[in-house]
Amino acid sequence: MSMHFTGQLPLATANRPERATIGHYSPNLKVTALGGGHGLYATLSALRLIAGEITAVVTVADDGGSSGVIRGEMDVIPPGDLRMALAALCDDTDWGRTWRDTMQHRFKTSNGDGEPGTLDNHTLGNLLIVALWELLGDPVDGLTWAGALLGARGVVLPMSTTPMTISGTVLGGDETGKLTRRTVTGQAALADQAAHGRVSHIELSPPEAPATPQVLEALELTDWVILGPGSWYTSVLPHLLLKEQRAALAQTTAKRCLVMNLQPSTTETQGMTAAEHLSVLHYYAPEFRIDVIIADPTVVTSEHEEEFCEAAEKLGATVVFSKVKDEHRSTVHDPLRLAVAFSEAFDHIPS
Amino acid sequence: MSMHFTGQLPLATANRPERATIGHYSPNLKVTALGGGHGLYATLSALRLIAGEITAVVTVADDGGSSGVIRGEMDVIPPGDLRMALAALCDDTDWGRTWRDTMQHRFKTSNGDGEPGTLDNHTLGNLLIVALWELLGDPVDGLTWAGALLGARGVVLPMSTTPMTISGTVLGGDETGKLTRRTVTGQAALADQAAHGRVSHIELSPPEAPATPQVLEALELTDWVILGPGSWYTSVLPHLLLKEQRAALAQTTAKRCLVMNLQPSTTETQGMTAAEHLSVLHYYAPEFRIDVIIADPTVVTSEHEEEFCEAAEKLGATVVFSKVKDEHRSTVHDPLRLAVAFSEAFDHIPS
Repeated sequence: MSMHFTGQLPLATANRPERATIGHYSPNLKVTALGGGHGLYATLSALRLIAGEITAVVTVADDGGSSGVIRGEMDVIPPGDLRMALAALCDDTDWGRTWRDTMQHRFKTSNGDGEPGTLDNHTLGNLLIVALWELLGDPVDGLTWAGALLGARGVVLPMSTTPMTISGTVLGGDETGKLTRRTVTGQAALADQAAHGRVSHIELSPPEAPATPQVLEALELTDWVILGPGSWYTSVLPHLLLKEQRAALAQTTAKRCLVMNLQPSTTETQGMTAAEHLSVLHYYAPEFRIDVIIADPTVVTSEHEEEFCEAAEKLGATVVFSKVKDEHRSTVHDPLRLAVAFSEAFDHIPS
Repeated sequence: MSMHFTGQLPLATANRPERATIGHYSPNLKVTALGGGHGLYATLSALRLIAGEITAVVTVADDGGSSGVIRGEMDVIPPGDLRMALAALCDDTDWGRTWRDTMQHRFKTSNGDGEPGTLDNHTLGNLLIVALWELLGDPVDGLTWAGALLGARGVVLPMSTTPMTISGTVLGGDETGKLTRRTVTGQAALADQAAHGRVSHIELSPPEAPATPQVLEALELTDWVILGPGSWYTSVLPHLLLKEQRAALAQTTAKRCLVMNLQPSTTETQGMTAAEHLSVLHYYAPEFRIDVIIADPTVVTSEHEEEFCEAAEKLGATVVFSKVKDEHRSTVHDPLRLAVAFSEAFDHIPS
């Protein structure tokens, strides 16, 4: 079955009058955001307040949780992070919010013995996206239909339509202090094992998987590319490991913005400073240049500020320190504050 | 969360111009169809061609297949037959048909060992309906949203919002010819065991479960009530076993139409003649009167015609013999032919 979405939306999105530029909002501003799960959700929640043409590009190596179970039973790319990106872009109407909440709904089920049931922990949206893929035979078409259901204010794309696997080496020490070196395959395992050491030699497989053509097109035409925040090794870095996408990122005339995480030291990045986050990107893709880096002031302590600014300079980037932290949840970016920070960064370096 | 559907559909259903009466189609004709799975699907596929106001009422005792797994893990009514009824009523547009096909999509999955996976055999629509129920907290609201997604040309309701269990006695003989008598609980088991004997003492549990208020209202206001076709003991008869609904069926001033199955002798009704189907209804609900019975001419052989017409007369019914069989699938009603038969029956006995 080949049913390409014609672009004719019977939803509120059709015939929606172009929003005028109100305050920070620019209807014609084209922004392409690269990421994975929660970090990309934060970026998109902010970008929808300021940009009229949003493309989200999502990694496809996730093998944990509901997506992991689905990948174990069906030959598909992981739907979870794609679903979250769509949810972040849902139309701000009763219709859009209800279908967002339905897509995000997570089943809690149990069998007769009080053990988790076979459907436990799946989100409806993951299953809906996979059903569309199987029905329409094309991942991008399926996401277009899921986006149309939500009246999504933007396009969500997988970086590749080939299911991928991430692997890496974790360097650590055993009880005797002897150096250990373990190769870990799979995103969930890597994120887990990284807690016990330092990650290196990250690789994506298959290495020559094609990038999604619509992503390459978006990267060519966009005004701004946004990378991060997100799990550094499993949501941010993979965007620089897919050969075709990496080349497109190097060639695009768009400006590039990197958003730092709020906690430099996470499970994946134990003990790493913010500057070392930049070094990691530079190590894996030395040709990748950044125009502006957005960092919350609390991320870089005064003793590390010089180190951080030097690392930023190596990437060609100006640093904009901006208070972007959610006041009540210290690991989450506040959408309004992040929108203001983007706005300032974009003004600072006109595209 | 209590989010009642306001009736404002952002879909094609809103602002859809009233269809003029073209041929057999009457925009103001109110029809309420009672049934279960495939039989109700056939009725609705026919009724949508002739009636503008359709209500479908679905049994809630199914415990087989995807619905059975879902009921085993969550405290909900079975979604499968409700999903099929919605699918039969989907809007006849690219949008309606694509979401119908997505709702009807059945996963075929396997684990690494070639065994069926945990998601195998589930249809997406079942899971979508359950997610809406859990999110909105009301089964009727959830079905309204699912219907809005499809642009459904009618309303689909469960006969009760209480999950129910059907049980019965199967009378048979063992190898020695001795009469056996087994109580079987559960719709799937009953349908299965019925193959080995004759069913009796059908009961619904809990017996005093309330009918869905919107069903009682529909039965009061409708022009026609349609019962059957469908599995006689598990899709048709249960509608006469729910106390409140049975009372409403007796009291309504609407005309009542019964559609006979195309094969009198099925797994559930081994060796039963068409006349015996009528006797079963009469036995369980002697007060239930029928105005007209639609039967394919092949269902009642000439030797049984007198017996059948006598049984119909006991129910107060006129018999309309009408060729309603699908030419290529002899167990399936042809929607166009059935629509014509309904039209003739309705004209025959003006409401």
